[in-house]
Amino acid sequence: MRGLLIGRFQPFHNGHSYVIREVLKENEEIIIGIGSAQISHTLENPFTAGERVMMVSKSLYENGIKKNYYIIPIPDVNNNSLWVPHVRSLTPPFNKVYSGNTLVKRLFGEVGVKVETPPMYNREEYSGTMIRKRILNDEPWVDFVPRAVVDVINEVSGVSRLKDLAKSDRA
Amino acid sequence: MRGLLIGRFQPFHNGHSYVIREVLKENEEIIIGIGSAQISHTLENPFTAGERVMMVSKSLYENGIKKNYYIIPIPDVNNNSLWVPHVRSLTPPFNKVYSGNTLVKRLFGEVGVKVETPPMYNREEYSGTMIRKRILNDEPWVDFVPRAVVDVINEVSGVSRLKDLAKSDRA
Amino acid sequence: MRGLLIGRFQPFHNGHSYVIREVLKENEEIIIGIGSAQISHTLENPFTAGERVMMVSKSLYENGIKKNYYIIPIPDVNNNSLWVPHVRSLTPPFNKVYSGNTLVKRLFGEVGVKVETPPMYNREEYSGTMIRKRILNDEPWVDFVPRAVVDVINEVSGVSRLKDLAKSDRA
Amino acid sequence: MRGLLIGRFQPFHNGHSYVIREVLKENEEIIIGIGSAQISHTLENPFTAGERVMMVSKSLYENGIKKNYYIIPIPDVNNNSLWVPHVRSLTPPFNKVYSGNTLVKRLFGEVGVKVETPPMYNREEYSGTMIRKRILNDEPWVDFVPRAVVDVINEVSGVSRLKDLAKSDRA
Amino acid sequence: MRGLLIGRFQPFHNGHSYVIREVLKENEEIIIGIGSAQISHTLENPFTAGERVMMVSKSLYENGIKKNYYIIPIPDVNNNSLWVPHVRSLTPPFNKVYSGNTLVKRLFGEVGVKVETPPMYNREEYSGTMIRKRILNDEPWVDFVPRAVVDVINEVSGVSRLKDLAKSDRA
Amino acid sequence: MRGLLIGRFQPFHNGHSYVIREVLKENEEIIIGIGSAQISHTLENPFTAGERVMMVSKSLYENGIKKNYYIIPIPDVNNNSLWVPHVRSLTPPFNKVYSGNTLVKRLFGEVGVKVETPPMYNREEYSGTMIRKRILNDEPWVDFVPRAVVDVINEVSGVSRLKDLAKSDRA
Repeated sequence: MRGLLIGRFQPFHNGHSYVIREVLKENEEIIIGIGSAQISHTLENPFTAGERVMMVSKSLYENGIKKNYYIIPIPDVNNNSLWVPHVRSLTPPFNKVYSGNTLVKRLFGEVGVKVETPPMYNREEYSGTMIRKRILNDEPWVDFVPRAVVDVINEVSGVSRLKDLAKSDRA
Repeated sequence: MRGLLIGRFQPFHNGHSYVIREVLKENEEIIIGIGSAQISHTLENPFTAGERVMMVSKSLYENGIKKNYYIIPIPDVNNNSLWVPHVRSLTPPFNKVYSGNTLVKRLFGEVGVKVETPPMYNREEYSGTMIRKRILNDEPWVDFVPRAVVDVINEVSGVSRLKDLAKSDRA
Repeated sequence: MRGLLIGRFQPFHNGHSYVIREVLKENEEIIIGIGSAQISHTLENPFTAGERVMMVSKSLYENGIKKNYYIIPIPDVNNNSLWVPHVRSLTPPFNKVYSGNTLVKRLFGEVGVKVETPPMYNREEYSGTMIRKRILNDEPWVDFVPRAVVDVINEVSGVSRLKDLAKSDRA
Repeated sequence: MRGLLIGRFQPFHNGHSYVIREVLKENEEIIIGIGSAQISHTLENPFTAGERVMMVSKSLYENGIKKNYYIIPIPDVNNNSLWVPHVRSLTPPFNKVYSGNTLVKRLFGEVGVKVETPPMYNREEYSGTMIRKRILNDEPWVDFVPRAVVDVINEVSGVSRLKDLAKSDRA
Repeated sequence: MRGLLIGRFQPFHNGHSYVIREVLKENEEIIIGIGSAQISHTLENPFTAGERVMMVSKSLYENGIKKNYYIIPIPDVNNNSLWVPHVRSLTPPFNKVYSGNTLVKRLFGEVGVKVETPPMYNREEYSGTMIRKRILNDEPWVDFVPRAVVDVINEVSGVSRLKDLAKSDRA
Repeated sequence: MRGLLIGRFQPFHNGHSYVIREVLKENEEIIIGIGSAQISHTLENPFTAGERVMMVSKSLYENGIKKNYYIIPIPDVNNNSLWVPHVRSLTPPFNKVYSGNTLVKRLFGEVGVKVETPPMYNREEYSGTMIRKRILNDEPWVDFVPRAVVDVINEVSGVSRLKDLAKSDRA
């Protein structure tokens, strides 16, 4: 069995990490798609695809996950009708898709692929939006993400980048 | 005389149908452009170009319209200066354009094409936005569209698609 | 039953016309896709999508074909994996595809759609390449295309356009 | 020394003109990039790149500026990570960048190019947004822009264009 | 009168320089379009748009040309039907177009713009293709281009770039 | 140290496998970029990015390689000047690039990144072109690729796909 999970991972956090570990229990391999791969340096999407690949990869390693997984950047297409075949062309074949997003469910459903809701975690606490807000407001955030993500964010000066993007947005 | 009418037709409704019948009275042929053809599966644009082509075509047939008409999907271009020549490259030549949209009027006007305001109908009652809202709220909607449009929406499970898109948007 | 036929129609000729008439015998409706819709004014693709829509439409009319058909411009996508879903998003649903092109057959075949070889005609005599060459060399060509196509080509000064394109290519 | 300044110039105004004159004091040559070059005929971006090239060029001439400068239209790219190399590929090499925009500063900063804040002017009074609003409300605006810009706006019927765009936006 | 001239200028050479000087005699202003602006680092198109802007600008300066001219990078569009309006959106309005290319003539002609053949020069001797070949073969080439072009090519290590591109092409 | 290797891998073969093993000796991590990721189903590029990701991944596993590596699909950009930053935005940061291609060397070299020639293997014997030709001609080919690649090609009916593409090309 090979399962597919797609997220924007802006940034990758403990909720994502939990879901991946759960999904790995029922799949031999998983594909982790980095959504909106071409977008970076915006308030909603501060990190590049490459930076997000590193966040995911290092976090899985930190969790001792050595099982086979694929991390694949997936740029947007400007046409929802083409999104599922676009994902398929970039990834190894998969048997299952995990997503809580109703558009994702709908698009896969229309081509006959059943989508399972991934295991739940506290979505109020673990959410990219919330973590980006905490970083911007100098509130504690490092406990919400794997240690490896803190390292990547520091390596690319992610905190100052996010603050610059916030200023730009207000201008 | 060949006239051009462009709409998004999300979905095609009785107001559109009325306008086409009126415009056909003063033209031998008409071209019906399906605007934003590449967009589908969004709350504002739930239906694909192909689905909209069917809505228009079946509705005209239902109205006994056998006069020559062309139904042409028109994808957006990312540049307003190129929109009129883009439309021209996809359609047979036309003598008249019918539109109530001031941007459409302006763009054709700047290249010397006069745009006529199409015959009026009750735009409060017959509007894509209103009909999509009615579908979402389980309010009566089938009387606002040709019978053929009801059939197409049912065939593609349009009601459940729209409700899924609404949930996705709220998430 | 609804059948799909795709061609570049540069220009539409008697072979195409024959195939359409044959295919209409076993389908209630057909969809005629105008391939490479965004390309025009090249030696291989001299005519715009709109001009080709007219060629097809007028020729069918000339042949007394009033049965329901759809003529849909289909721009290329830069990714063969997306071509079939792209065609589907622009067209009404179809049950059958007719094509002699092995790539088209392969792409539809990989998503489980069987493609039938269309009825044969003399492909040496009736081919876009051959007709464009005849036009360029001032050899007889009008007998190879429907009368309506001659009219469209004349209306858009197609002969001089083709000769200009040939000069440009040689430069 | 060659300096780079980028603006959307919708329209070019006295604040822009002041900055250019100041920047020219410390550079032998300057490059003036016309940002979002592909956008026009929107309420926020009413003028084409070509119209904006003329506004800048005529205004500099009006100010007696004959020093070497380059005016280069710069279309957007859909990827912030590519914006700086995109600008570089379209412009002569530059030693300095002037910008007050934090995103621009950030993007150049991440590739090691220091960005200077351009000399200040009254940004409440001289701003594209404010001038477009004045034009729309029939309030005085000609004193906020160089005489040459008034000429260009009149030549392209810019006032009526802006009013049409505003109507379209409300619709 | 404002005239338009478009070239790829790979590289700008004495033939181009001669044509510009001749065309300036009958126009108050000229627009010099840098065609295929987005292409560089290929054997046929080794130089970036920015490098070509410099070549043209420095060469005109070297020739004492201070008359008003505009140098505008023009990226390709993937649709010949949109090329003329694309050029227009990027440039100030023009009254005349100068080109020896039959496709350019045709495309402008179809929208009613007459194109004049520019003054002749020895096209065997002064041609981008010939000069690129000379550079590759270590044959004399500096006398075929303005002195300023030699400087730009040296500044960007153009000779070694061209040789690397040639090797890549053969691989 | 993190090294970058880019190839089209149409298909992945023993030469590629050898190079990766050698490069891994001097790097803690490597990034394997799948070039021209958006192209598939052509005679030169028969396999999708997802299929090639699987070929590489399974082959490394077969070779007992468990060291940290990243396999990243890299679509083409239509502008050589943007290629290096495009690669960077999709990949984790790297210290070294390995390539024998002079264009790749040149593009990285112009932004100050030294490119090393990868260890040599018999390029006559192990080449994508040669292997595709062998498959087409029913000559032995399985010994030129890792066992895992044979499996992937069989799983996607790669042999019949390639033969269909060859027929299409001849048509």
